Amino acid sequence: MSEDRLDRLEARVQALEDELAIVRLVAAYGPLVDAGDADAVAALWAEDGTYDVEGWQMASRDDVRAMVESDGHQGLIAGGCSHFLGPAHVTVRGDEAVAVCESILVRHREGGFSVRRAGANHFHLGREADGWRIKDRRTRALDGSVEARDLLSKGAKGEVW
Amino acid sequence: MSEDRLDRLEARVQALEDELAIVRLVAAYGPLVDAGDADAVAALWAEDGTYDVEGWQMASRDDVRAMVESDGHQGLIAGGCSHFLGPAHVTVRGDEAVAVCESILVRHREGGFSVRRAGANHFHLGREADGWRIKDRRTRALDGSVEARDLLSKGAKGEVW
Amino acid sequence: MSEDRLDRLEARVQALEDELAIVRLVAAYGPLVDAGDADAVAALWAEDGTYDVEGWQMASRDDVRAMVESDGHQGLIAGGCSHFLGPAHVTVRGDEAVAVCESILVRHREGGFSVRRAGANHFHLGREADGWRIKDRRTRALDGSVEARDLLSKGAKGEVW
Repeated sequence: MSEDRLDRLEARVQALEDELAIVRLVAAYGPLVDAGDADAVAALWAEDGTYDVEGWQMASRDDVRAMVESDGHQGLIAGGCSHFLGPAHVTVRGDEAVAVCESILVRHREGGFSVRRAGANHFHLGREADGWRIKDRRTRALDGSVEARDLLSKGAKGEVW
Repeated sequence: MSEDRLDRLEARVQALEDELAIVRLVAAYGPLVDAGDADAVAALWAEDGTYDVEGWQMASRDDVRAMVESDGHQGLIAGGCSHFLGPAHVTVRGDEAVAVCESILVRHREGGFSVRRAGANHFHLGREADGWRIKDRRTRALDGSVEARDLLSKGAKGEVW
Repeated sequence: MSEDRLDRLEARVQALEDELAIVRLVAAYGPLVDAGDADAVAALWAEDGTYDVEGWQMASRDDVRAMVESDGHQGLIAGGCSHFLGPAHVTVRGDEAVAVCESILVRHREGGFSVRRAGANHFHLGREADGWRIKDRRTRALDGSVEARDLLSKGAKGEVW
């Protein structure tokens, strides 16, 4: 009987580990991208993971690395910025998971700081041999668009975009 | 002896599950309210749960749903906004819990984004048959008022308002 | 065999408890410092813990308490402010841990709210008899400085400053 109880308890511990691993992964994105650590940011994605953010379509880990190394992003961090992501809400289903959070982009310019954007972030993740990776991320500005609102609602219900 | 150890370990796992469930519940509020998903927001509250936010007194799940469906809130999200809540600090005591977090409201207007408010959020939660629900939430602007500061201090100590 | 399995499972539960305890500790800082609760803020630090933030060098729990009680900080919270910290990314290694998060400082002035600063926060923590405490915290403005970016990158990799 104890072995059965252990099996059930182990499954509950595994569920907690999965959820925290994904919360941790999402919590790493902002610090790493604002540090300009291109390899570490890219490693959050699956090899063929995608990142669809307004005006930018990335279709691989290499594309994500190139985004961090781009003049546009390097200019942002040289001036000072924070890709400030809120706490992720995570839904795990076996080897797949969905996470959602809101975010703001704060920029430093001319000695002051200001909010340049608020966004909706939807992550579809997959379990790989050595941990969770982002399969698809979609980010939209919270400017009233139905698409951004759908990302939030679906994400909080654990639905894939 | 193993059964005793299993009992103790199971209680520790239950405590982790409770804390994460409440962290997840609070992390769902912003995405759901900015999506305008009235039913899903309302479902975070107990049937007779309350939400006391400056200028608005809600005394039931129906009242919360009506707030999301109101012209005021619908106007906010049609223009674009983020009810951006920080990570919740949670204290669980049996079937009751207290959570606290700060929040900012970011609005999109005339093509730009700005912070319109910073707030203190105190949640008193209860365990129901199918999970945790908000019994009472109180939110106050961080404008220097003693009341807002009390919410933060009491919340971080796990004290009910 | 069951005792072995229990041992391994207990170690996994302990790891989850450690991570959540540190996430919770970091989540308490903003609410407590904005409440002006000097004793509770100080208690987050080890007796000889340090806090190095631009223009301020604290080298003990007493120094942290004095910062909260200072005219500068009391003026901030009397006017209204939010030291809004994002979700902490935590790496635990035995009895030591590293946490990192970004933060913004929002101030209330003349009836409005605005972002006054975005920052990088690196925490080095230690396990004490009754829980985790901050040994060293370093905070730098995200104004493009290499130092702030190093804090973020090292923190997200679990490296001590």
